[in-house]
Amino acid sequence: MTSESNTLSSMGLRWSKEKMEILDQTRLPHEEVWIDVTSVDQMVTIIKNLQVRGAPLIGVSAALCLATALQRGLAMYEFEEAAKKLRAARPTAVNLMNAIDRMLAKWKADGSQEALVGEAIRQFNEDVELCEKMAANGGHLLPEGGILTHCNTGGLATVGRGTALGVIQKAHELGKKIHVYVDETRPLNQGSRLTTWELNKLGIPFTLICDNMAGALMRQGKIQGAITGSDRIATNGDFANKIGTYGVAALCSLHKIPFFVAAPRTTVDVNCHHGDDIEIEERDPKEVRTNIALTTAPVWNPAFDVTPAKMVSYWILDTGAYQIMDIEAGVLK
Amino acid sequence: MTSESNTLSSMGLRWSKEKMEILDQTRLPHEEVWIDVTSVDQMVTIIKNLQVRGAPLIGVSAALCLATALQRGLAMYEFEEAAKKLRAARPTAVNLMNAIDRMLAKWKADGSQEALVGEAIRQFNEDVELCEKMAANGGHLLPEGGILTHCNTGGLATVGRGTALGVIQKAHELGKKIHVYVDETRPLNQGSRLTTWELNKLGIPFTLICDNMAGALMRQGKIQGAITGSDRIATNGDFANKIGTYGVAALCSLHKIPFFVAAPRTTVDVNCHHGDDIEIEERDPKEVRTNIALTTAPVWNPAFDVTPAKMVSYWILDTGAYQIMDIEAGVLK
Repeated sequence: MTSESNTLSSMGLRWSKEKMEILDQTRLPHEEVWIDVTSVDQMVTIIKNLQVRGAPLIGVSAALCLATALQRGLAMYEFEEAAKKLRAARPTAVNLMNAIDRMLAKWKADGSQEALVGEAIRQFNEDVELCEKMAANGGHLLPEGGILTHCNTGGLATVGRGTALGVIQKAHELGKKIHVYVDETRPLNQGSRLTTWELNKLGIPFTLICDNMAGALMRQGKIQGAITGSDRIATNGDFANKIGTYGVAALCSLHKIPFFVAAPRTTVDVNCHHGDDIEIEERDPKEVRTNIALTTAPVWNPAFDVTPAKMVSYWILDTGAYQIMDIEAGVLK
Repeated sequence: MTSESNTLSSMGLRWSKEKMEILDQTRLPHEEVWIDVTSVDQMVTIIKNLQVRGAPLIGVSAALCLATALQRGLAMYEFEEAAKKLRAARPTAVNLMNAIDRMLAKWKADGSQEALVGEAIRQFNEDVELCEKMAANGGHLLPEGGILTHCNTGGLATVGRGTALGVIQKAHELGKKIHVYVDETRPLNQGSRLTTWELNKLGIPFTLICDNMAGALMRQGKIQGAITGSDRIATNGDFANKIGTYGVAALCSLHKIPFFVAAPRTTVDVNCHHGDDIEIEERDPKEVRTNIALTTAPVWNPAFDVTPAKMVSYWILDTGAYQIMDIEAGVLK
């Protein structure tokens, strides 16, 4: 990860004022194909095709795309329309909206090219910094040994080193003997497709397992800790994350294995005080049926589940690492 | 299921003295293709190709194939060689060996065609009867509501109504309001491919889930019981079954949901007194990598796991339904 002002690069993004490349995540893990992004319309397509994914990465990529477009001749009077196109490319992506809203605010306050490029670079650096803080807050807390993780939380999801995977990477850098067990994370296989690719790049030893094998691993004493990211944290510490996270935390609880959550502080929804108030998106049955199951099989396909605070050992945020007594004292409020 | 002496049929097998058909399980759930089995060599290929699967079904099919071959002109002096070919078609299948050994013993004791056909039919009827007994012992014990099951245990695995799925079917017949939640059962997807197909045939309402969703379902109060089959039961009640079974039982234990095992009494290994003594086969990493994961990803791919007796509410065998106090009193010894 570099962040000198004129070139930026991360696991999934390469940028200079004049040129921007996005790693096509739909081709992973088999091929590493970089897309040369030459227009805002192309970036909209890339976002819609899920070729770029990971909420922070999408937001920062969109902001940087606008900066490059200006360098390459986008006129100032075209800026607002271009920004709004990007903002609408994935309507549920809050990070994308925030990133573009910040660019639009800067455009209104100080519409110079320099100011807008500076704002996009700032967003990149802020995300890197956020990840560094989580890593610093959590890396020393992770136990040595087998660490189970679920879904994708590394350099393909952010422009920094990631949330949960950033903490794992930090622990590895600190010299802790870590072996990562990667849940494949059905139905979309973010673990088997993306997290394995990241760990391979990082040179951290790992083993891929099917989600249903985690319990047996724990019983064999091979898991010393588990860590995931989070999509939303209630002020009581309950949190929503990729479906299957609750099962991991529940099994940890039963086996008395510490369970860690890593997320930026902005993940805390200060208006949500209990996990039961978090609404869970249900997704297309086709994802579960894939090409294997009975095509007419009724399916339950929630995107997320909610893990109760009592099953969490540490909440690792950029602002600090907290335990249940901190949460009960109101640190998330 | 019919068992008049001249025609036999089950979910995966149709037989008369002169003709035998096997449902090609590799084409399920998308196509229902019946293979006309005209020779012993063809049956060997069918077994090797996994077109027929399920330990009891393989054994009975092989015995019936020999009976039909005799009707169709296999000479008595060719019988032993044909039997041995079938016996070797899947070396790990104990049921197959037992079924063929019984045919060979009959051939030695009374080599008449009639005696051999009778022996094959007897094996079919015994398996049907075994399943009926498990269903009778367990059907009334299952609670109403959501019943979670893992892997495939119905009419595609046996020639009867199956083990765990037979018990579920019985509870359904008894008028209990049952909704089955089917784990897809990675990595080989026996749940999504086969159990959904069976439940659809039986008209029992069901929902397919990914394995990692079971915990969230339990937390939502949608699971009132879970039931699986077993590959091997130790005399202390610990049992081995498809990988992922332990995780289901552990989550049931945490949520105080009753967990049932259904198996024929012959599954009890009287020489094995503790689950820790059960050796677990590790399978090809390719099964987990499928076409999605990093092709070089290190993989852990155990075929089975072991569930400790303390997590089981009922052991439903053909000889009776037992609880932990029965096991402790030595009922499995």
